[in-house]
Amino acid sequence: MTAHALGVSPGNSPADIPLATGLDVRLASRSGALTGSTAGMAPGYVQANLAILPERLANDFLRFCQRNPKPCPLIGVSEPGDPSIPAIGLDIDIRTDVPGYTVFKDGVLVDEPADLKSYWRDDLVTFAIGCSLSFEEALLQADIPLRHVEKGLKVPMFRTNVPCNPAGVFAGPMVVSMRPMTPAQAIRAVQITTRYPSVHGAPVHIGLPEAIGITDLQKPDYGDAVDVREGEIPVFWACGVTPQSVIAAAKIEFALAHAPGAMLATDLKNYELATG
Amino acid sequence: MTAHALGVSPGNSPADIPLATGLDVRLASRSGALTGSTAGMAPGYVQANLAILPERLANDFLRFCQRNPKPCPLIGVSEPGDPSIPAIGLDIDIRTDVPGYTVFKDGVLVDEPADLKSYWRDDLVTFAIGCSLSFEEALLQADIPLRHVEKGLKVPMFRTNVPCNPAGVFAGPMVVSMRPMTPAQAIRAVQITTRYPSVHGAPVHIGLPEAIGITDLQKPDYGDAVDVREGEIPVFWACGVTPQSVIAAAKIEFALAHAPGAMLATDLKNYELATG
Repeated sequence: MTAHALGVSPGNSPADIPLATGLDVRLASRSGALTGSTAGMAPGYVQANLAILPERLANDFLRFCQRNPKPCPLIGVSEPGDPSIPAIGLDIDIRTDVPGYTVFKDGVLVDEPADLKSYWRDDLVTFAIGCSLSFEEALLQADIPLRHVEKGLKVPMFRTNVPCNPAGVFAGPMVVSMRPMTPAQAIRAVQITTRYPSVHGAPVHIGLPEAIGITDLQKPDYGDAVDVREGEIPVFWACGVTPQSVIAAAKIEFALAHAPGAMLATDLKNYELATG
Repeated sequence: MTAHALGVSPGNSPADIPLATGLDVRLASRSGALTGSTAGMAPGYVQANLAILPERLANDFLRFCQRNPKPCPLIGVSEPGDPSIPAIGLDIDIRTDVPGYTVFKDGVLVDEPADLKSYWRDDLVTFAIGCSLSFEEALLQADIPLRHVEKGLKVPMFRTNVPCNPAGVFAGPMVVSMRPMTPAQAIRAVQITTRYPSVHGAPVHIGLPEAIGITDLQKPDYGDAVDVREGEIPVFWACGVTPQSVIAAAKIEFALAHAPGAMLATDLKNYELATG
């Protein structure tokens, strides 16, 4: 798996810093050498979506994730106020080890800082949520092409009419990502992604976008549009944007997250997530 | 799993003969007490399609099956001239242990005898080929409804434009069976049937009938039509009618098979076929 195979411009990676491992990516982020997207970096390593919430909401959010494992597969949770997550990486400092962050107040994006040092609080809990980059690696290794990767685009994502199971203040529709495939590729993709339940697992829908409230595949709610060609069907996976969307909708007074595409690179290997 | 759940009329089974096991079904066939379909009998036991060919063609047919494992999953092969298949059942006499047979000469159906005693030859080789009844049991146990079962119909089957990999005299298109499902059921059905490679395994196609040369889902080439409702997609599995079709097309001078629906009930249990 090369960075190129994952559709990443070499320009994303500082030429003088090897970013072969999750630790490499975290240290480059920490030093400020790396900004922007982490796509294609540390190939083979699990990257995670982040949600960072005040402890008083953490229990609600944990229950939300438990009740919605396909869009919100938790791979790590910190202790309150502790910026490390030892279970998924050596010496993680969640305040600095991601290339960019977002800050929300009352559901509104108020800042996009390079680090969280000035925003950190002793009551914050970090949630690391599995990401489709892991299963996309498995699909590419099986020679299943991914159009958004080939075109250097973001995967198209759609709000559905499928409600998540609510918990406390957290509620809202599931967001899905879409990848067009031939029927045979779609069947193989179900088999492959079934093995990765902690990174969204098997598709949640296939073939009939209108049945989940998607009226125009060319108008994604997030990411970029990609074409669905004759002889292809759209295949939909639960998406890690779901928890971000739900957190924003809850208009909670303070929440932090990664910047789009700027994921937490962990020390876990993708193959470790496979169930069989 | 009840006979009713498998869509079988109680009238199929002689009321005074318990047909709980594969052996029961074989002995009832042998005695002449059982005629007609074996669907719903010996629940939990593997039933098999039969192809019985002269030894001089057996090598070609074996290679055909090896090259086309999805339509032709072999679960047992006899020694030439030997009417038993010890690997799949105690004391099988393939000449009598199926409720009905078909006899082909030069590719033409010439007889439908109740047994093969008058047709048996010392050069005949029996091929037992996995059958969708096994994976349908697994689907029903997962509460995935099967419309043809609910309606008491035969599964609709279609010749496709997908060529099998030829071997010797054997060549021709793959035949598929079709089951309409919701997208979520289709995804689950891929997962479940993937575990059963020796009974056709995962679907070969999903969602786009025209892509495999099927122009009208209401006009199956074999079996009965079932409706595909709004919110459903057609899911296609490789079908054990494929080898029958290929054998007929080869117009070989002499071939035997089971009568439609009158399968060989084995001593194997369906769960034994699961890969995981």
